[in-house]
Amino acid sequence: MTYCVALRLDQGLLFMSDTRTNAGVDNVSTFRKMFTWSVEGDRVITIMTAGNLATTQAVISLLNERSVVPADRKQTLLAAPTMFQVARLVGDTLKEIIHSQAEDGQNAESTFGATMIVGGQIKGMDPRLFLIYPEGNFIEASDETPFFQAGETKYGRPIILRAFDPAMSFEEAIKLLYVSFDSTLKANLAVGMPLDMHAYEADTFETGMQRRIPQDDPYFQSISTGWGEALRAAFMQLPDFTF
Amino acid sequence: MTYCVALRLDQGLLFMSDTRTNAGVDNVSTFRKMFTWSVEGDRVITIMTAGNLATTQAVISLLNERSVVPADRKQTLLAAPTMFQVARLVGDTLKEIIHSQAEDGQNAESTFGATMIVGGQIKGMDPRLFLIYPEGNFIEASDETPFFQAGETKYGRPIILRAFDPAMSFEEAIKLLYVSFDSTLKANLAVGMPLDMHAYEADTFETGMQRRIPQDDPYFQSISTGWGEALRAAFMQLPDFTF
Repeated sequence: MTYCVALRLDQGLLFMSDTRTNAGVDNVSTFRKMFTWSVEGDRVITIMTAGNLATTQAVISLLNERSVVPADRKQTLLAAPTMFQVARLVGDTLKEIIHSQAEDGQNAESTFGATMIVGGQIKGMDPRLFLIYPEGNFIEASDETPFFQAGETKYGRPIILRAFDPAMSFEEAIKLLYVSFDSTLKANLAVGMPLDMHAYEADTFETGMQRRIPQDDPYFQSISTGWGEALRAAFMQLPDFTF
Repeated sequence: MTYCVALRLDQGLLFMSDTRTNAGVDNVSTFRKMFTWSVEGDRVITIMTAGNLATTQAVISLLNERSVVPADRKQTLLAAPTMFQVARLVGDTLKEIIHSQAEDGQNAESTFGATMIVGGQIKGMDPRLFLIYPEGNFIEASDETPFFQAGETKYGRPIILRAFDPAMSFEEAIKLLYVSFDSTLKANLAVGMPLDMHAYEADTFETGMQRRIPQDDPYFQSISTGWGEALRAAFMQLPDFTF
């Protein structure tokens, strides 16, 4: 499993993903699930992947290969004219890979399935964020739903629903995602540290702060411990039930 | 879907379940999922059900019918000598129903599947709590894991993991379950009010406080609102990330 979240903030886009992949509980590895492409001054695109690792690696490799071959440049991440076209390109590539791996019908297609979150900004346009389904179609984040999650989404969702506000600073939003990841890590073995993060600041058209957060990151530890205590304190302070 | 939780407290057993059943999103109904049997001075048994409604209703009906037929009394909820035998009886009945409805192999069995939480106390023994799987086998709550959830368990799990302590009073534990249900209700349409509750006090051998909690219950509303605010306040008070 996997846990990925992307937030569309007024300040820009914030991406965070874990790095655990597993087949069963004893075949556990660390793989990067966040990939960023940029052309300075023109565009920054980040993709996060959840699902079958063979599928997601093939999609990323194909997107990369196509970017370096000069023919038909329009069909690449680095030359697509809009973020909508970028999302379409990723969706089509994903569908193509799943379809080529699964020739035995629907069951196999769900085995090889994957979901992707694509976000970024191209010069002259606003930052945009998309969630791409295994079928290759996709939805875009809106003012009503300015974030997407993929993978093991449920444990970490309540705090995002309660506390997320697009007007947050990056500093607050990173704290929010740490809390959301911490709840997920505590409950599900298939999500694991280290985490990857990318904070893209709107209208800069260059890769923002990227960081790998290890298990022993002091700030993550302080959030994890502090959140447990803060939750218990918040809970205690609510009025008790009376019979 | 469904959400049910049972806590094994030092003070006794606390059960809470929702009442929503749905097939798709437009065939939505309210059905009781919590059932209690008691023989005053001898035993109290509560069962909560999650899964296929036809299956769970058939199991409960069969358990009821068998209790009123006097022959072979040992094989009933009201006469089984221990809670372990009660759990076995429920597990066997569940397996029998699923098996009789699903004659086309594993797929059908998962369609008709259900999970049950069984808890109670029989004179001369401690209160015990079991989780029964569709296969008819079961596990018992222990000091390390003194609670069980069934159905849509993920949204409401982090707060139980963080705040539950078997030494809690019923009043605090009810508050905890309200918070856990509120997080689930906020995130999943397949879990819905009203809720059912049963608080069985250890060594009383009579049905404890039973209550149906409607949508507009003032205490539930105060927890729901208060928890949102308390969460945001707890979150704000954690140190922000610094670049």
